[in-house]
Amino acid sequence: MSVSSIRKVKGGVTAARGFKAAGVRCGLKSKGKDLAVIYSEGEAEAAGVFTTNRFAAAPVRLCRRRLQRQTCAQSIVVNAGNANACTGERGDADAAAMAEQTASHLGLPPAEVLVASTGIIGVPMDRKKIERGIAAACRSLSRKGNDSAARAIMTTDLVPKQAARKLLLGRRRIPVLLGGIAKGSGMIHPNLATMLAFLTTDAAIDAKCLRRALRAAVEDSFNMMTVDGDTSTNDTVLLLANGQAGNRRITNPRSPDYEQFLSALKDLCQDLAIQIARDGEGATRLIRVVVEGARSREAARVVAKSVAGSNLVKTAVFGGDPNWGRIICAVGYSGVPIRPERVSLWIGRTLIVRGGQPRRQATAEAARKALAGKEVCLRIALGQGKASATAWTCDLTYDYIRINAEYHT
Amino acid sequence: MSVSSIRKVKGGVTAARGFKAAGVRCGLKSKGKDLAVIYSEGEAEAAGVFTTNRFAAAPVRLCRRRLQRQTCAQSIVVNAGNANACTGERGDADAAAMAEQTASHLGLPPAEVLVASTGIIGVPMDRKKIERGIAAACRSLSRKGNDSAARAIMTTDLVPKQAARKLLLGRRRIPVLLGGIAKGSGMIHPNLATMLAFLTTDAAIDAKCLRRALRAAVEDSFNMMTVDGDTSTNDTVLLLANGQAGNRRITNPRSPDYEQFLSALKDLCQDLAIQIARDGEGATRLIRVVVEGARSREAARVVAKSVAGSNLVKTAVFGGDPNWGRIICAVGYSGVPIRPERVSLWIGRTLIVRGGQPRRQATAEAARKALAGKEVCLRIALGQGKASATAWTCDLTYDYIRINAEYHT
Repeated sequence: MSVSSIRKVKGGVTAARGFKAAGVRCGLKSKGKDLAVIYSEGEAEAAGVFTTNRFAAAPVRLCRRRLQRQTCAQSIVVNAGNANACTGERGDADAAAMAEQTASHLGLPPAEVLVASTGIIGVPMDRKKIERGIAAACRSLSRKGNDSAARAIMTTDLVPKQAARKLLLGRRRIPVLLGGIAKGSGMIHPNLATMLAFLTTDAAIDAKCLRRALRAAVEDSFNMMTVDGDTSTNDTVLLLANGQAGNRRITNPRSPDYEQFLSALKDLCQDLAIQIARDGEGATRLIRVVVEGARSREAARVVAKSVAGSNLVKTAVFGGDPNWGRIICAVGYSGVPIRPERVSLWIGRTLIVRGGQPRRQATAEAARKALAGKEVCLRIALGQGKASATAWTCDLTYDYIRINAEYHT
Repeated sequence: MSVSSIRKVKGGVTAARGFKAAGVRCGLKSKGKDLAVIYSEGEAEAAGVFTTNRFAAAPVRLCRRRLQRQTCAQSIVVNAGNANACTGERGDADAAAMAEQTASHLGLPPAEVLVASTGIIGVPMDRKKIERGIAAACRSLSRKGNDSAARAIMTTDLVPKQAARKLLLGRRRIPVLLGGIAKGSGMIHPNLATMLAFLTTDAAIDAKCLRRALRAAVEDSFNMMTVDGDTSTNDTVLLLANGQAGNRRITNPRSPDYEQFLSALKDLCQDLAIQIARDGEGATRLIRVVVEGARSREAARVVAKSVAGSNLVKTAVFGGDPNWGRIICAVGYSGVPIRPERVSLWIGRTLIVRGGQPRRQATAEAARKALAGKEVCLRIALGQGKASATAWTCDLTYDYIRINAEYHT
């Protein structure tokens, strides 16, 4: 497949044909929009990936139940400002009510609506505000609603996050669109680093392939991105595919069409994941950790995440210091049986460690320069095989401490 | 076994009969003592636990090799200021030379000496300084050398760390002494959070039991303590037992004597681990995480370490905020299959969460007060079984960032 068949295009969750969205203010956050509805004109195949946290919030449990029973959905309702987590049976009822109200405004069966929430935990939802918000959002649905929807799912994110891709599918190069919005690890009272992403596509694809593609794309994007390593009660990625592109329906996960679709979806998810990492709390630099030469992809992933998750690596990058010792150390304690004498490390384009030992200090100045930019690439070659993986994170700064220590519940 | 048979006593690595120590300055650190020798008047059974980091430093590799071949050792030589890690074959030769020089001054076979190092990595040792330091330390060995030895292994630790215990063993209540020194997660150029501990006892115990006891004690102490989660290239715990207490030799790991010895050793190791956590970089508060009601000890350990390792929990404690949401979240993502509806959480003595849901806000003020002290206890009851575990950590502060970001290699 030629990569050139995937193109970055403007827009977000309404880039694909047949999708509308709206973001409105209902008053759960102290300011700004805080409720979004996403809607597909026709029924869509649906797939979801959810937090592994055992304290899964009520909306997560609702989505999981629905997507076990059904393969379709036509709308998503999301609120920011209240996570509806640790809220017991009342929480389950509130999540179900959000779906019912949205369905009633849109003339859908309630089961066609999926739900997500982010914000304060352990506090019951304000039902009146939510109800008014849902009514307003359903009235305002539009093809241009992507910006307002992207804003409405933010908590302390500094910027809205959206992306879209155009894929020319197969030999006939049928145009297929994919788009999405996301929110990152901004915290809110009492602050969980919830990660939400809502993706849409007009590809025709069956539910089995859609689920498989979403899992694979999330594995190489959102799951390889860390700000502080905490997995929230509400993390949710949802994907709707309404088939309006008119491509020949993708039903075989070993077909070239599936591979192309997966590449585009992965590219979209990575774009959103990078936007989230870049906007991590207090972040001044995006850090990309590339691991090559691993014996397996899983090994490469584990090493990349070990480095990306190290507070010592992240503070070194904040300090602009090419501290190879901290990076090598995080490679060594990842649990993967690496061979130290085969390991090389580049900071930017500068080879710093070869065969497990540092090169002459003369290279430090070049590495220091590589750390001066807004984006830092740490590349580690393990010399054991051909597998690779990339992880993304941000530096760990005074502002991270300020944001997370000075907030009072 | 009555706990009253274990008593805290003054002293450190020379508290047990027949042990001498010395700490001297050899010039590897910019100031202060930086080389220590520990010596047993008679041959001692020896046991060691080492870093799991694949980039194990040369002295770690040397100790591992020796303790695979032999069960005895009579001396330990340690330097601070240079970790002798990522130093290739030259590093192996330098570690062997440290052992040989120490052995020659003490009239021992070289194999009787174990070696440890902490400090800068990737830089060859300054052989002359080390050699002079070893000579001076061997000349100064004394029963009162525990303080100077404790100081000589410090890097950026703010205070030396030592502890000792007296155990009245068995029905005849034979006095057995245990003592030790440790260094914590202070960083030094270019800064790995090396954890070193050197323990001695005059108990008579065979090597098999000694190794088993050390592994068990480390599991419940040093391995349950985290400052920033990074496992260094040099982490080392060594234990020498010279038998001078004259107790009936412990040879059965199911005997009451073994159990008593293990309790005392665990108590000693926890004391040192807590001193390390309290002195974590930039720390203002010691955090103790107690997990009860788990299905297995391993499950309790995993949950306790998940909470102790959370940056969000640690910044909340720094901010003095009873942010139960972050704690519950870390319980939920630990990977242990907990049941949210059974989980309770206390901050200090205040019950904050019951059945997975927060109690009324009225309790927040009491919890806030519990966070105002120098020590904070977070207690989590899982309601699934009878196993428990405790982890220790410190809060995450501006000073952690300052220390780790402002240092330049």
